[in-house]
Amino acid sequence: GAPLGPSLKKKNIPQPTNPLKSFNWSKLPENKLSGTLWVDVDDTKVFKILDLDDIERTFSAYQRQQDFFMNNGIKQKETETNEDTLGSKKVKELSVIDGRRAQNCNILLSRLKLSNDEIKRAILTMDEQEDLPKDMLEQLLKFIPEKSDIDLLEEHKHALDRMAKADRFLFEMSRINHYQQRLQSLYFKKKFAERVAEVKPKVEAIRSASKEVLHSKSLKQFLEVVLAFGNYMNKGQRGNAYGFKISSLNKIADTKSSIDKNITLLHYLITVVEKKYPKILNLHEELKSIPEAAKVNMTELDKEISTLRTGLKAVESELDFQKNQSSQPGDKFVSVVSQFITVAGFSFSDVEDLLTESKDLFVKSAKHFGEEANKMQPDEFFGMFDQFLQALSEAKQENENIRKRKEEEERRARMEAQLKEQRDRERKARKAKENGEEEGEFDD
Amino acid sequence: GAPLGPSLKKKNIPQPTNPLKSFNWSKLPENKLSGTLWVDVDDTKVFKILDLDDIERTFSAYQRQQDFFMNNGIKQKETETNEDTLGSKKVKELSVIDGRRAQNCNILLSRLKLSNDEIKRAILTMDEQEDLPKDMLEQLLKFIPEKSDIDLLEEHKHALDRMAKADRFLFEMSRINHYQQRLQSLYFKKKFAERVAEVKPKVEAIRSASKEVLHSKSLKQFLEVVLAFGNYMNKGQRGNAYGFKISSLNKIADTKSSIDKNITLLHYLITVVEKKYPKILNLHEELKSIPEAAKVNMTELDKEISTLRTGLKAVESELDFQKNQSSQPGDKFVSVVSQFITVAGFSFSDVEDLLTESKDLFVKSAKHFGEEANKMQPDEFFGMFDQFLQALSEAKQENENIRKRKEEEERRARMEAQLKEQRDRERKARKAKENGEEEGEFDD
Repeated sequence: GAPLGPSLKKKNIPQPTNPLKSFNWSKLPENKLSGTLWVDVDDTKVFKILDLDDIERTFSAYQRQQDFFMNNGIKQKETETNEDTLGSKKVKELSVIDGRRAQNCNILLSRLKLSNDEIKRAILTMDEQEDLPKDMLEQLLKFIPEKSDIDLLEEHKHALDRMAKADRFLFEMSRINHYQQRLQSLYFKKKFAERVAEVKPKVEAIRSASKEVLHSKSLKQFLEVVLAFGNYMNKGQRGNAYGFKISSLNKIADTKSSIDKNITLLHYLITVVEKKYPKILNLHEELKSIPEAAKVNMTELDKEISTLRTGLKAVESELDFQKNQSSQPGDKFVSVVSQFITVAGFSFSDVEDLLTESKDLFVKSAKHFGEEANKMQPDEFFGMFDQFLQALSEAKQENENIRKRKEEEERRARMEAQLKEQRDRERKARKAKENGEEEGEFDD
Repeated sequence: GAPLGPSLKKKNIPQPTNPLKSFNWSKLPENKLSGTLWVDVDDTKVFKILDLDDIERTFSAYQRQQDFFMNNGIKQKETETNEDTLGSKKVKELSVIDGRRAQNCNILLSRLKLSNDEIKRAILTMDEQEDLPKDMLEQLLKFIPEKSDIDLLEEHKHALDRMAKADRFLFEMSRINHYQQRLQSLYFKKKFAERVAEVKPKVEAIRSASKEVLHSKSLKQFLEVVLAFGNYMNKGQRGNAYGFKISSLNKIADTKSSIDKNITLLHYLITVVEKKYPKILNLHEELKSIPEAAKVNMTELDKEISTLRTGLKAVESELDFQKNQSSQPGDKFVSVVSQFITVAGFSFSDVEDLLTESKDLFVKSAKHFGEEANKMQPDEFFGMFDQFLQALSEAKQENENIRKRKEEEERRARMEAQLKEQRDRERKARKAKENGEEEGEFDD
């Protein structure tokens, strides 16, 4: 129970003789107890009822070696009857780490196939021998020893040789100075080129697509034709326009011919353009970067670039820190990272300059079409063009199919006409012959 | 082209002799033209190149009756060759509505199987004959005549009898005063009971679940036992707790026995509780509303209730409006809606009172467990309990299975022992017999 006074007196909790596994709960801070049900909860009376010896046996931090339990059929039964052999030869490993975490850590270590010393060396040398693949580093980052782990492990370091694999690994890594920062720097260094290669084409797509829509002559000419159609067709409020929003391009196909509902204004426009403005059909050629640019989410792109920026800064400040440390033998952090920072810095500036240029061009091109760049992201803006270009291609293909079908039908009609003509001619000839034969008939 | 001056002069756009289908574009407002490519676009020169007669033929607002095109094989060909019969008997319908919209409207009207007059009457009488099912009303709400539709239809109202079905429907509906508000009121009235019935059990679940966690004795007792376990097992920072966060309940199963990794602290706790605190196992009984409450998203619930509130207000203000109108014959809006508002108002106040009570209780119960209600939504709070209760049931079942398997094994062992004993006895008896027989042996 928590007395409501300003300071809580320490409870009289019985102590187990050997360390136990821990229960990973979140303690309620003592200043938050007031007004909760915990004020009325008294666990000390529970201790009188619990079989503490049994709990100690069942949840001992010292656990039998894992493979002992691999086949849990008969062997398990055996251990059940031998529960009191705790302290005997079978008890070999000390494990204070959270069970599931230890298990996952074990899996990682067995996939890594390196001793703790080898891992240590790889980290100190910034993995000059390429022992740590990117995915393994990513996994290692999940098993950074926490403050609570370290406290617990420190308490038991006299029993180092009895520690379980995962516990021992965490203990050894906790002894490397700035283990976490080294690991993060190494991971960042390994991923850097790949991340730049992911980001750069996206920035370039925005730049190219912006230039394309700004300068495409076919696009401008096409819009002029569409404007004429709209002004001819629409009356009143909707008519007499000087320009329209780009989104309107994707409404063209909504207007259907009154002669044939399978023919839309888009199909019709294409035929007109093919006849009267054949050059416009270079549209796709002039807007080649649109499909890529339509896929770029600027919020994500900004986030990716800012992740790069933050990561680079973190590695730089870790470099500053390590420069002021007396380096351990075999520690190559300063030399490797200095060189990396130089190269990566140039490469990242490139990307940033490109981004600035692309954003400027995007603002310009949005403005060029009467849109505001702060109200419309590139994926939406270029998405409208992209959707239109696709619809255009499809409608073109449909026109082509209709044309072919028509030709086919005409050809068939012509052939049928010819055939009919020929049959008529033959019939006439036969008749003429029959008439002739009738006159001089002497068959057998 | 748009001259940059303050006022744009009207362009010289050729006018079609008959109305055309419209192209549903979004005009760029004239004050937004400056700085865009439209300044350099001149559609008037395009008109010289276009075949305006052909456009007029292809996109005439007057279209042939739809069923004429149902089989578009031979018949279509026929019309292709007869393109110039515009104005002949085949041209029957005038359709100025957007093609796709008209089509969807037609589908709705054919499903509704009511004439325009019947629909009109149903709306004026607040559907006293139950002609308009809820889903149809929802559809009808998508075909409210817009300002632009009405303008267009008004222009052609002299040709009412030649209008297409959808056009005519929209025209007729546009003549009902406050058509949209009537439709919305009717839809709201029809959905009201259903919506309340959806919302109320959710509010009730929060109320009941809050009361349950506040008053459950088993829960408190269980937490006391868990607190004792944690304090016995955890050392240092993690130990000596006076209380823990409820989320910790879902960490109990993460601690595994060092004797058998299939047994977790949760399995163990259950056995202890069953032996020493059998009453606690009423936990599920005392927390019956938890599963329902865990599903309630308060943000959505608030939204649903506020939709009801707004809807009710809208209907009320429409009632005020209609009260001041001189009512048309057959218009029953005022009488029907007055009555509805009275009943619905009571019912909604009920829900609001219940919501206030539930929220108060939730704040109390969150506080009771050291949580802050403004940082944790009911679904998260009760979700933790729910997850725990489920894990508890599962672990209980697993314990039961282990127990049964053990009993089974013991029974088998006992039987095998008995069998062995019996066989031993038989063997001995046989031996004894053999020995006896050896003395006086006279077999065949």
